[in-house]
Parts: sequence; structure tokens; C-alpha cells
Amino acid sequence: MPRWKPDARQRLVAAALGLFAEQGFDNTTVAQIAERAELTRSTFFRHFGDKREILTAGQKALSVLLAEGIAAAPPDATPMTAVAVGLERASGEMTSFNRELGPLLHAAIEANEELRERDALKSVGMAAVMADALRLRGVAGPAAQVAAELGVLAFKTGFSRWAAPEHDQDPGELTTYTRAALDELRRAAAELS
Amino acid sequence: MPRWKPDARQRLVAAALGLFAEQGFDNTTVAQIAERAELTRSTFFRHFGDKREILTAGQKALSVLLAEGIAAAPPDATPMTAVAVGLERASGEMTSFNRELGPLLHAAIEANEELRERDALKSVGMAAVMADALRLRGVAGPAAQVAAELGVLAFKTGFSRWAAPEHDQDPGELTTYTRAALDELRRAAAELS
Repeated sequence: MPRWKPDARQRLVAAALGLFAEQGFDNTTVAQIAERAELTRSTFFRHFGDKREILTAGQKALSVLLAEGIAAAPPDATPMTAVAVGLERASGEMTSFNRELGPLLHAAIEANEELRERDALKSVGMAAVMADALRLRGVAGPAAQVAAELGVLAFKTGFSRWAAPEHDQDPGELTTYTRAALDELRRAAAELS
Repeated sequence: MPRWKPDARQRLVAAALGLFAEQGFDNTTVAQIAERAELTRSTFFRHFGDKREILTAGQKALSVLLAEGIAAAPPDATPMTAVAVGLERASGEMTSFNRELGPLLHAAIEANEELRERDALKSVGMAAVMADALRLRGVAGPAAQVAAELGVLAFKTGFSRWAAPEHDQDPGELTTYTRAALDELRRAAAELS
């Protein structure tokens, strides 16, 4: 039994990712997704524009959280502290639903070139959104770009360690993992030259 | 008159980018590209698999040059020095053909979501190729990732300054621009925390 209480949206995501894993993204129809979720096609279209959106809706929400966190950091925070606050805000919203489905989502994206392309654009977009939020705090262009790239890498690294299937018990909060990944990257950046 | 002597491949690229700018990527056919280049469709297909490849073939070649440069850096070079050698190798291959068509290429990609997605995947791929080349030199994972991201940013920033239309005379070598961009990013990274 899943540890999260699925609402309609989550049931659709879980059904879709299961089907993508079993029979591929291209072979899966909206009708099949709705059927497995025990919902109607029109409920599907109330939540998602198409089946591709299942895979990208979360990333858009994530960008918003990251940018909001950066904007909300104390005015005297350094760029990296602001990025850390952004990661904390975004990480705090991720639940065991995200953790359990993360590996399926990843597998679905990796298996399909069109999806890999779209995913890459979203990650480029995530860095751009974070860099903009940093520039709005008065951070200079190059520092904003570098800090944003480190933020994206930290989120991805932290998430994939958190969601790794080898945890046989509750891995705790995602924030712990993204914070550690950011510290690692920050140290690496400081020692580069 | 162009300052480069176009071969068939370059004529196809120039014709295609001109058509994409005038009438959009989706509305342009291979037959039209071949016609404008005064070549046959079968010559087109000797050089490119489809019209999308016109936009991405260069990026693949670029990744190879960056990785080769990193591999060829002296064994005791720091990660950033290795990245600098990679940038130098790749920058040295760019000619006025690339500089003159760069803005058209950029415009064609920006105008079309499918192309933006594909371009994003290539830039994620470029960072991955550079990070792999650094890891092969024994650079630790996080440092390799950060150095690779800085390398990609430096190439893009340097190229776009070099190709900027405001130069009313020869802007000199691309290497000057990518080196300056890398120095900027390296300083920004060192001062982040």
C-alpha cells in the first residue's frame, strides 16, 4: 500500500508512470491512463493538457518554489545562502509521493528522446529562473549564473540520492540531501582553480 | 560577399538558416534548402539526415573538440586549466562562417519550441561530455560537474559576445572571448560563499 493518500491528480500521475514503464510512453494513451486511475478522460484533461505534461508539470512548480525561496532569503544573504533557502523551500514541498515515483519518472524520461529533450529544456529553464531571482537581489551576472547552476545540480543530486531504491527504510527529509549536495558543490567550486 | 569560401555543406547551412529566418523552420522543406543552395536533394542527404540536423551537427562536433582538449591538457593541469584547454581547442576551430551564421542559428532555435528543447539537450550533453573527460583525468565528481558547467557557460557567453552584431569590424579570435568569460566565471565561483 502506498504511504501517501492519492488524490485524482496523483492517481493519474502514478497510473501514467506505471504504464510508461510497462509499455513505453509512445504506446500509452490518455484513455489507458484514465482507465488505470479509475477516472474519466475528462478528469485527466482537467489536470493535464496532454500526457507529456504529466512529466513536466512538477518541474515547473519546482522552478517557482526555487525562485520564491531565493527572493525570500534575508537581504544580506550571500548568493549561495539565497540558493540554499531556495532549495530548502523546494525540498520542503516534496513528499513521499515524489520520492516513490521519482525513479519511474526518471526511467520514463530516459527511455524516450523527445522526453529527454523536453526535460533538458526544463532544467535549463530552472537555472535561468534561479539566475533571474538572484539578479533581482543585485547579484552580478556571472555569480548569479554560477550559483544557479550549482543550485540545479544540488537539487538533482540530492533528489536522486534521496529517491535511490537502496534505502530500505525512510530516508528522512529531502532537505538534508539537497543541503549536503550544495555544500559539496560549493566546496568544489571554491577549490577549482 | 561572405569572407569564407563556402563548400557544399556550408552552402546548405547558410541556405537553410536564411530560409528558417524568413519563413520559419516548420515551413521550410529540404527541397527549398537544396534549391537555394543550388544543390540537389541527394547532396543535402549526403550531409544531413534531416533539416533539424542542420542546427545540431555543429554542437556535436563542438562536444568532441571540448573533450579532446580536456584530455590533451598537461597531466598536472588543474580542472579549470584543463577546461581552458578544451575551450581553446574548440574556439580555435570556429571560423568567420560560424560567427556570421551564429545569430541566425540562434534566432531559428529561439523561434521554435521543438528546437529549443533539442538545443537544451545538446547543452546538457556538452556539460556531461566535459565532466566525463575531467573524471577521466581523476577529477572528483562534484569538481568535474562544476568545472564542466563553467566551461559550457564560458563557451556560450564568449561565442555570443564574439558574434554580437554590434562589432562593426573584425572582432578577432573567439579564443580571446571564451578565455575572458571563463576567467570571469572562475572568479565568480571563487567568491561565491
